Amino acid sequence: MHNPQLNKHGELQHLLTIDGLPKAIVNHILDTASSFVSVSDREVKKVPLMRGKSVFNLFFENSTRTRTTFEIASKRLSADVINLNIAASSTSKGESLLDTIDNLAAMHADMFVVRHATSGAPFLIAKHLNDTRQHHVHVVNAGDGRHAHPTQGLLDMYTIRHYKKDFTNLTVAIVGDVLHSRVARSDIHALTTLGVPEVRVIGPRTLLPGGLEQMGVRVFNNMNEGLKGVDVIIMLRLQNERMSGALLPSAQEYFKSYGLTPERLALARPGAIVMHPGPMNRGVEIDSAVADGPQAVILPQVTFGIAVRMAVMSIVAGNSGGV
Amino acid sequence: MHNPQLNKHGELQHLLTIDGLPKAIVNHILDTASSFVSVSDREVKKVPLMRGKSVFNLFFENSTRTRTTFEIASKRLSADVINLNIAASSTSKGESLLDTIDNLAAMHADMFVVRHATSGAPFLIAKHLNDTRQHHVHVVNAGDGRHAHPTQGLLDMYTIRHYKKDFTNLTVAIVGDVLHSRVARSDIHALTTLGVPEVRVIGPRTLLPGGLEQMGVRVFNNMNEGLKGVDVIIMLRLQNERMSGALLPSAQEYFKSYGLTPERLALARPGAIVMHPGPMNRGVEIDSAVADGPQAVILPQVTFGIAVRMAVMSIVAGNSGGV
Amino acid sequence: MHNPQLNKHGELQHLLTIDGLPKAIVNHILDTASSFVSVSDREVKKVPLMRGKSVFNLFFENSTRTRTTFEIASKRLSADVINLNIAASSTSKGESLLDTIDNLAAMHADMFVVRHATSGAPFLIAKHLNDTRQHHVHVVNAGDGRHAHPTQGLLDMYTIRHYKKDFTNLTVAIVGDVLHSRVARSDIHALTTLGVPEVRVIGPRTLLPGGLEQMGVRVFNNMNEGLKGVDVIIMLRLQNERMSGALLPSAQEYFKSYGLTPERLALARPGAIVMHPGPMNRGVEIDSAVADGPQAVILPQVTFGIAVRMAVMSIVAGNSGGV
Repeated sequence: MHNPQLNKHGELQHLLTIDGLPKAIVNHILDTASSFVSVSDREVKKVPLMRGKSVFNLFFENSTRTRTTFEIASKRLSADVINLNIAASSTSKGESLLDTIDNLAAMHADMFVVRHATSGAPFLIAKHLNDTRQHHVHVVNAGDGRHAHPTQGLLDMYTIRHYKKDFTNLTVAIVGDVLHSRVARSDIHALTTLGVPEVRVIGPRTLLPGGLEQMGVRVFNNMNEGLKGVDVIIMLRLQNERMSGALLPSAQEYFKSYGLTPERLALARPGAIVMHPGPMNRGVEIDSAVADGPQAVILPQVTFGIAVRMAVMSIVAGNSGGV
Repeated sequence: MHNPQLNKHGELQHLLTIDGLPKAIVNHILDTASSFVSVSDREVKKVPLMRGKSVFNLFFENSTRTRTTFEIASKRLSADVINLNIAASSTSKGESLLDTIDNLAAMHADMFVVRHATSGAPFLIAKHLNDTRQHHVHVVNAGDGRHAHPTQGLLDMYTIRHYKKDFTNLTVAIVGDVLHSRVARSDIHALTTLGVPEVRVIGPRTLLPGGLEQMGVRVFNNMNEGLKGVDVIIMLRLQNERMSGALLPSAQEYFKSYGLTPERLALARPGAIVMHPGPMNRGVEIDSAVADGPQAVILPQVTFGIAVRMAVMSIVAGNSGGV
Repeated sequence: MHNPQLNKHGELQHLLTIDGLPKAIVNHILDTASSFVSVSDREVKKVPLMRGKSVFNLFFENSTRTRTTFEIASKRLSADVINLNIAASSTSKGESLLDTIDNLAAMHADMFVVRHATSGAPFLIAKHLNDTRQHHVHVVNAGDGRHAHPTQGLLDMYTIRHYKKDFTNLTVAIVGDVLHSRVARSDIHALTTLGVPEVRVIGPRTLLPGGLEQMGVRVFNNMNEGLKGVDVIIMLRLQNERMSGALLPSAQEYFKSYGLTPERLALARPGAIVMHPGPMNRGVEIDSAVADGPQAVILPQVTFGIAVRMAVMSIVAGNSGGV
């Protein structure tokens, strides 16, 4: 199926997934973000790029942290932001998702930032807007089910580029619960697109999906082996609900096998950076000595994340819709 | 009792109900709204009419959809908006409604947009503000109990005027659960004020209130008869809680007797328009073929609703208080 | 321990408590607030002092009223405001408080307005920001446990100064549940700092903490005696949860002994003012005839509170951090 995120000129009109996103567009986003990093440092942290535009944060699934980053990004672009917790709203009155969307679009929304527990919901919304020729509304995926979290993937790329400059000589390891992670999926696509020659995935068999090798990824179940010589380590959050139950014996056991300690970090290349999408489980997937250590770039990721979201929002808002 | 929505010069200082609102004021609101419809189409969708004013959305009853429309209208007028979910707030600490109101007025509020499950609450608040000479605060009723929803009534009038131009030769039918509908009540008052010669109400006996004939309304229990030759059909939402229980046999039975299908719509005058305040129950009160068909003006209603709320807010804010 | 609210130049970089705050700083806040009182009266109630700054309302404990006052103060200073209900957020995902703080600071926050059920939480946050050299972020305590509520204390001082001009010849009585009140604690510190010669505390033994005499306070268990000749009466709210149970026989009994009635008010000096932090329990700690009477300055307190919060926020935002 045609990917509805590009308009007929091949420009980004929605951001739904990094999968299949042309390298030139990824680089354009990262370059634009670069110009916004300094905005957040200024005395007045605003640019008028989206003044008078209406951005709707449509969070069908609660995520205060992600909602906050988009709200800040919107306000620094001078947009008006409307937060909608949709679970508590009309869908509970039996209205269909697409009726809600049409309704909000009719209020002259300019952008929907969509978070949904169901994979593909932002795609469905974007396709509907295209099909019904409501080209004035742009969709940004803020995380859908296990599918994608493209702005997280892009801010990870921004962070790697910031510290390592060149993607084409890197070895990058993604560690942990890849099976349930939309972040991992977005990162793998982005790393591949940007020409990273070796992407590794490290985790217990129960938390790795099938088909990784076909994506060009090297799989390790032993963390010490997987970390050898890597330049970048992307740790994943272990969801609380996985810690007890069928998939894992216990949080302690997990830390023993897959927790990132200073000893394990020493196996990586000197100067390797440690990333984490947050929120961290200290003592579960990561040791505090690493999380607070000199190789961690976890807080810079957050800072860059605002700039990357500003870049994505201003780029899609500037491209006219139409398929 | 004197209606507190007009000041001593007969100007609109609060909007509480359409009942008794002079025709000149209704027309002034519709004319003002007309100038705002284009604002929402502009690149920068803002006018500075309420810059620096503080609008409080006081929602004692949850309604994300209505709150959103007022929030957007406020922001497009450049006002500052404070959303207060009052159920979760001080009233739970035992403070009286009027103490809460005085408290917020003392923060130099300029406007309260009030939604309340109790009929008459916005009236009570406006009267208290007038009586205590707190003339700097204006009240807009965003729906009170079964009593009134005046901005919905006004946006319905705007929509009818937009498509039909002249009210004085129209037949308008309101269909469904009139008994529990504040929308129906506001619409009947508005249609009568604007000189519509024939207003009909269609619904099962159990969902129609007494006294309709005295309001100058023709009552039909048979939908096919009621729709004959009408120019405008206003469908009402069937609340979920009515669908089972004493008032109605079932949603399916309701649809069979009162659902608006293409066949039934064909009984109306050619070019008749179909309206609905949303959210719709497709397959209950309205068939999808009608809801998405060429005669439906349900999404334009939403668009006009923003402009009508901007008009109401800027008009009452501009009229000095005082009874 | 060094109080982290002052930077190395002795300027206010955070507002955590009035305890130990130099008199010159208190007066500077009150003088600055004075210039903002008129702002709220203007047609456009905004000054550009914090334009482009990001203020985060971090409410770990729900308080709609206090959150609203800070939100209004922020908007009138032209800041961008992000409301975070943290109970519902990351801390529920097991993230530590300080990780949440670091994360938000990395988004280039300029100010955290912190409300927390645990005494000392804002102090802990400010100390952490200082220790980690995140000097761009300022903390304002919006109430922590039973410890402090400094902006309430400051607005009380503003109100007293407004009506009584000079602190050095006043007798001030604080009445009620001092044991559980952060307001009382902040007020006692402020009154002492500003040179009030006689501070009295009135309440039942079960609701007074130990150590009051050491703070230079005169303690009364009999209200009629305590009110004799006072210039200012600060009533405290009786929390609902105290009204039944071990500490108090009943709300009616409490009113009989400690409710402020017109008869009791007559024991104070003529022209004495009556204050209350709100929300009031009419008929429990205060009679409606007093609450609505000519000596009550309860609503002016609210108005002054906005100006005082604007003053505090603009002052701390303007002082560079660093200990």
